[in-house]
Amino acid sequence: MTGKVNLLEKLAMLDGYYEPGIVGYLNDYKLQVVRVKGEFVWHKHDDTDDFFLVVRGRLTIQLRDRDVELEEGELFVVPRGVEHCPKADEEALVLLIEPRGTRNTGDVDSDLTRPEPGLI
Amino acid sequence: MTGKVNLLEKLAMLDGYYEPGIVGYLNDYKLQVVRVKGEFVWHKHDDTDDFFLVVRGRLTIQLRDRDVELEEGELFVVPRGVEHCPKADEEALVLLIEPRGTRNTGDVDSDLTRPEPGLI
Repeated sequence: MTGKVNLLEKLAMLDGYYEPGIVGYLNDYKLQVVRVKGEFVWHKHDDTDDFFLVVRGRLTIQLRDRDVELEEGELFVVPRGVEHCPKADEEALVLLIEPRGTRNTGDVDSDLTRPEPGLI
Repeated sequence: MTGKVNLLEKLAMLDGYYEPGIVGYLNDYKLQVVRVKGEFVWHKHDDTDDFFLVVRGRLTIQLRDRDVELEEGELFVVPRGVEHCPKADEEALVLLIEPRGTRNTGDVDSDLTRPEPGLI
């Protein structure tokens, strides 16, 4: 059985921005942490919702019709099929939850596309 | 589409301890907040893991062979089938994630058993 996870300790182990690490699993969902700075890429996930919780800093989740501005302790679930593009002017630390195998850039091929992360 | 969720604002809307409220959904999972104080009841969920993240305070998740001590910003996933009993000496504020319909006291009938909470 795995132990507890301290989110800030795990986040401190990450190199670079938009390079997520998996800290655990909830059934067939992956619990990921990621450091965010700058703009990601517009994409969507046709098969799943996408959970974002801000651990530190501020994160903007751009949607096509509005921006969702998240501060520490705030979460937002992007519904499946909805295009979104995260961005942060300053570094933000984020907990992401989505099904295992969900590709980080969804339906889009991008320089930011990454393989399934490893457990950190 | 629902909006963002500020966890502390939602937690402030709850009456009493071990009375969870649902703040959103991630696919077929419910995102719940709960105020915890005192001891819950020993139980297990045979069909699902159980996600706990401490938003404020300290939470002990008692397992049969050890205690998992969680502080703010720490999470733990109780594996399916594993007996556990949360407790907190002082009030703790917690985010819980599990599939919709998961009973709060799992396999045990208790005075603390509650119906599926409503969306707050």
